[in-house]
Parts: sequence; structure tokens; C-alpha cells
Amino acid sequence: MALYVHKYGGTSVGTVERIQHVADKIVQARRSGDDIVVVVSAMSGETDRLLGLAKQMQERPNPRELDVLLSTGEQVTIALLCMALEARDCPAVSYTGAQARILTDAAHTKARILDIDTAKIRRDLDQGRVVVVAGFQGVSEEGDITTLGRGGSDTTAVALAAALEADECRIYTDVDGVYTTDPRVEPKARRLDRITFEEMLEMASLGSKVLQIRAVEFAGKYNVPLRVLSTFDDGPGTLITYEEEDMEQALISGIAFNRDEAKLTVEGVPDRPGIAAAILGPVADANIEVDMIVQNVAEDDTTDFTFTVHRNDYPKALEILERVRQDLNARKVTGDDRIVKVSLVGVGMRSHAGIASKMFRALAQEGINIRMISTSEIKISVVLDEKYLELAVRTLHDAFELDKAQA
Amino acid sequence: MALYVHKYGGTSVGTVERIQHVADKIVQARRSGDDIVVVVSAMSGETDRLLGLAKQMQERPNPRELDVLLSTGEQVTIALLCMALEARDCPAVSYTGAQARILTDAAHTKARILDIDTAKIRRDLDQGRVVVVAGFQGVSEEGDITTLGRGGSDTTAVALAAALEADECRIYTDVDGVYTTDPRVEPKARRLDRITFEEMLEMASLGSKVLQIRAVEFAGKYNVPLRVLSTFDDGPGTLITYEEEDMEQALISGIAFNRDEAKLTVEGVPDRPGIAAAILGPVADANIEVDMIVQNVAEDDTTDFTFTVHRNDYPKALEILERVRQDLNARKVTGDDRIVKVSLVGVGMRSHAGIASKMFRALAQEGINIRMISTSEIKISVVLDEKYLELAVRTLHDAFELDKAQA
Repeated sequence: MALYVHKYGGTSVGTVERIQHVADKIVQARRSGDDIVVVVSAMSGETDRLLGLAKQMQERPNPRELDVLLSTGEQVTIALLCMALEARDCPAVSYTGAQARILTDAAHTKARILDIDTAKIRRDLDQGRVVVVAGFQGVSEEGDITTLGRGGSDTTAVALAAALEADECRIYTDVDGVYTTDPRVEPKARRLDRITFEEMLEMASLGSKVLQIRAVEFAGKYNVPLRVLSTFDDGPGTLITYEEEDMEQALISGIAFNRDEAKLTVEGVPDRPGIAAAILGPVADANIEVDMIVQNVAEDDTTDFTFTVHRNDYPKALEILERVRQDLNARKVTGDDRIVKVSLVGVGMRSHAGIASKMFRALAQEGINIRMISTSEIKISVVLDEKYLELAVRTLHDAFELDKAQA
Repeated sequence: MALYVHKYGGTSVGTVERIQHVADKIVQARRSGDDIVVVVSAMSGETDRLLGLAKQMQERPNPRELDVLLSTGEQVTIALLCMALEARDCPAVSYTGAQARILTDAAHTKARILDIDTAKIRRDLDQGRVVVVAGFQGVSEEGDITTLGRGGSDTTAVALAAALEADECRIYTDVDGVYTTDPRVEPKARRLDRITFEEMLEMASLGSKVLQIRAVEFAGKYNVPLRVLSTFDDGPGTLITYEEEDMEQALISGIAFNRDEAKLTVEGVPDRPGIAAAILGPVADANIEVDMIVQNVAEDDTTDFTFTVHRNDYPKALEILERVRQDLNARKVTGDDRIVKVSLVGVGMRSHAGIASKMFRALAQEGINIRMISTSEIKISVVLDEKYLELAVRTLHDAFELDKAQA
């Protein structure tokens, strides 16, 4: 008899009918005799509705009260799902984050889980109940309701799976797994049977928004086997695990991309220590998140410093850099908000030379100009003109034969 | 510096604008330097919306889960009100029933308050905060969320006022106080400046639905001064207190009435012990609430037994009585579902003879036939044909000069 944690997101529990469908799935899963703990999100649209009410009350809603407000979303879902289970003669019990003793720090609206006391949940499981826990929320040591930030339900599920030492944490979504790339861009994209935590992290942060990145980190840290699968279709989904010694690694797992990038360059920066901090400090102070950073070797006594930001932050970043340029006595600031990032991800590339050159060659053959390059151990990212995105993804998908299952 | 508990019901917090209005009222009340604890209900319509969702999940929703679900209604309101207060530079903190440690028994959907730990609330008040508590809900010793049943927010307010030894518990509603009778029936109806708990109980149970009867009982038991006043208009409202020794009592405080009555009579019942139980037992078993009960002295060896029920229960009650009649060998069962009850209420009548005869004479002069009479220490109730309701109320209002303030 195994123990599974299931997680159903907002879309999966978005209507009365969908909650009933989830109840059916759980009842079916129970037939095998396995224990099941379910984590659910708020019904889709509910969190936005509550946020809308909050903003009518206070321009920047008090974070403690915002958490009290938003946490009602999941509380509604846990109760409704338990009723649906009870209506199917499946004993069930619901817990809010506080009732499940999901202890967090006091950082309202973005709290981190510190500890989970699983005694109550274990007792319920022993008594044959399905335990339904509100995702996204916890309680501080002072007894205040906290929330983990958007998408935090994934984190709740993984944390519970870790605390309960579950056999698997199953994240049910509206996609049936993790793909080699976005099927809307490359119809030949293939569902992966498995992917490593590290690859998943690179895929997630690069825009394959299947899972919350924090949840994947958490799963990796506590070695919780994580499976992404569809609420609406049957199928094995994609298993996310540690790289196993005897596992023949595919060279490349997938191609991630990000459409909403903009790049900025400060040209002719005096090449001396502290320059990177002098440029990025004011940008960070303005709460602008920086993605890729590239600095090339100095020519003469100056260098060019380039980084990318979200496209929405481009005008503000440009304004800040103009001020920084004057302070630093740099030559000029240039930028482009019509660029995209395309990344090749795969733990296999660690031990294989020639991946980068194969990638660059494939792009060159299609006449695609590479504007920036950045690499890590398991990914290679290139910045391209926006217009090339789809062509580049398809070209690389073909070049690395991602449509074919790899041993 | 005084301590007040304010309670705002669903209509008073029914929209974003109304919550903002309530926040304005609280800020104004704070100007005097008084401490304020606020109890709020769910926004009007919200509880029904949630109940609707529940019934789609399970025909008879699991009571524990129903409480988890319904309690979100007030949780939304406390957060929104605190945000509105904070936006007005008024420090505020919200507590759910569980956070405020409103300990109840485990009778889900109709729990009773056992104890309130006010330490946290007192600390917040000392720090200059307005404390906003979710009405209608509490927590059981096992940590489960409970609710007190419809209208339970009044009870929460009174219980908090008792536990905090507040100077007054102010129930803000959509009426500006307790009236001598319903102004829609008698336009000369007058707002009472004060009324005793006992009178209020008789008025409430007889259909003047300003306050939850349990809240009034609670206030009476713990001697919490209770004031009913309007959320939307300024004014002193009506103070509900113990009868004071030196208080010159008005003879009559008001006239309550109930439109939805039906009466049933079992005629020719053998006059022997246990008859009342034999008749009312099966009625109670069918969950039919009985209001007035009248049994007259026996003629020969038989008696007539009459009682009233809610009009909706009339057909079912009639059916039950027919069975009972056969068992008891009584003569026949008659009934009438076109009757109303009109009651004169006043602690003053205890010490004044002649109230009843004055009442009956006034009704007789208008040709109104009395069908049943029942009396208690502080009220006299008569059952009349439905068509006489308005005439009877106005006649008695005039006869006892209720439009004039009494010393």
C-alpha cells in the first residue's frame, strides 16, 4: 500500500462539475487501496476576484489581511471536495493550512514553509480517510494565516509529500506532462517520460510554466518523486526524479523559450572593479528582475555590459541606465525590446562536447543571427530577434531529433 | 475610556461601499478615544451562494465541511474591513473565530460558545488597534471550525462583550431601534429608548426579528447592555437592559404579532393523564415546532386540546393528528390556517391589574373575535382571524397610547 499526494490546481477545480470529476478520480485511485492526501488550489478566478475586492479597499492591501482574505479561496475548495467525496461514500476530512499545521515564516504573501506536523494527517489516513489540504497557505508561529505566493499549492503538495515520505507527489494540471518544447510552436514536440529535477528547473525558469520552480527545488532537495499529469486525460505523465547512475541520459531533454525579454547594453564602461554592481544595483533597487547577464572582455580600457529584463520593465530600466551611464561616465546606452531567448536544456550535455557548436551551426544554416549567448552546465541560451523564435525552436527540435524517444 | 463591541450584519457590509461606510463609522467612533472590537457577518448573499455550491456537491452537506465552507464568508469581510480601516490610518487586526479562540462545542452548524480567551484581543486593544472578529464561527476543542447557526454573529458580539466586560454591545442593523410595533402596520409605531431583556425576548420570539433570540438570552444572562441601532442613520437606537429598581416601568412596551400561524384542535379527548404528551409527542417527532398550547377544563370526561404551529407545517400536523385521534379515540380534529397571533408585551403588566380586560374590551369594541388566549407573566397573546391583524394592532396601539413616550 503506497501513499500518494495529489495536487489539483485552479483550473482542475474551477467549477462544480470539475470538482466532482476530481472526486471521481480520487475514488478511483482509492480502489487500489493506496492512501491519498489531496492538495487543492482556489477555484480558478476566485483569487483574482478576492484581489479585486482588496484593491477597492486599500491601494496596497495590508499583507496580513490579504493573506486572511486570499486563504478563503482554497478553504472553499477543500470543503466542497470533501462533500463530493462523502457523497461518493469516500470518507474525507479537510484541513486549512493552519489546521494541517503547515508552519511558515511570517513573510505574508510570500511565506516559506518551515515545518509540517503530520500527526493529525497520519491518524486520519490510518482511519481510512482521504485528507484534503488547502494549498498555498500556512500559519505563522504567532498563529497568523500566511500564504506562499501564487502557485504555492505545488509547494504545499511537495512539502507534504516530503513530510509524509510519500511514494510520489502527483501534480494534476491541464497538460499531460512535460514536453520537449511547447507543442503550440513545434507540433512534433514529444512528452518526456522522465526528466531530472535540474533539467526541470531550467525548463521552468525559462518559461515552460508547468510547475512552480520553488516546488521543483523543494522536491529535489527532499528527493520527492514528482509526477506531472493531466486532470482531464488518463496517461502516465512525466516523472521528475534525480539523475540515476545507471540511467542512459538523453543529450538534450528539451527546448525552452521566453518571448517577453528585452536587452539593455551599457557601452564603453570604464573597466574597473565594482562596475557590475554599480550598474545592476539601481536596477535591483527598482525591483526589476534581471535574467541573463553578459560582459565581454575589455577592449582598451572599457567594456560593454549587457543584460536582459522582462519586456514590461524595459522603459524603466532604460531610464535608470541613462542615469547610471552619466555617473559612470560610460559612452552610451542601447537596448532592444524585440528579442527572445531560446535555450537547449539537458543534463546529458555535461558529458558531451559539441552540443553548442551543433546548435550554433543549425541556427546559422537558417540564417538566424545570435545576439547573445549564455551557458550553464546543463543549458545553452541564445538571444535572438523576436521574429526568429518559432523557426529557431523547430530547427533545434529537428537538429537534436527530439521527436524521437531517446534511450 | 470605554470599550464597545460593534456588530455589523450582512446588509451593513453587503458591498464594497458599505464596508467603507462601516470603516468611516468606526474611525469616527475611535475619535472619542474608546476601544472598539468589531464583529462582522458575511457580505449579504454570500452565505446563500456558498450553501448553493455545497448542495450541488452533496444533497445533505457534511456538517463539518459545511462549517469549513460557510466560515469563509465572514473571513472575507474581516480582511476587507481591516484593509478599509488601515487605508484610513486606523490600525486594525482581524481574527477568525478560531484565531480569536472562540471555543465552542462540536455541534457543527449549530455550535454553542463555551469560552473565549480574550488575551490576544486585549493586547491588541492596548496597542491601539481596532480588533475585527469574524462573527458566527468558532473552533472546537479538536481544532475544527464550527458555526453558530444563522444569525450567530449577534451571539458572537454579545459573547465577546461579556468576555471583555465591554461597556456596551452595539448591534448595527438596517432598522434604527426596537419599535412599539411594526411601523409598516401601524405608522404611529414609536421607537423605544429602552426595553428590558425579558420584553425583548418576547418581542423577538413573537416575530419582531431585530435580534437573534440567543443573543438576547446571552446578553441577559451576562448582563451585557445591548443597543440596537442603525448602520445607515445616526441616532441613539434602543437600549436593552435589566429592569432597574428605580425605573418607572411603562405598562406596555410593544405589540408583537405573527402572521404565519395555524391552529389545530383535537376535540373530545378522553381527559386522563398523559394526553398532552400523547398528542404532542408525534408532532415533535416530525420536527414540527409548536407555539401556543391551550387546554381548557374538561366537560364530562373529555376535553379539547388546541395548539398552534407554523402555517407551512399545517398539512403535515393535520395528518399526524388524524392518526393520533384514532389511537386516542378522540371525537374529531379541526383546524384553521388563516389565523394570526397578536401579543401585548410589557414587564409593567406584572404589577398592574386590568391590562387583559382593557385589551379584550378594545378588541371587542372593533368587533374582533378572539379565538384563543394565552398569557405569561409579561405578555398576553390572542389568536385572531387573519383578516383582523392590522386592525387589532392599531386598535391596541391606540388603546395603550403607545405612540406617546411613557415615563
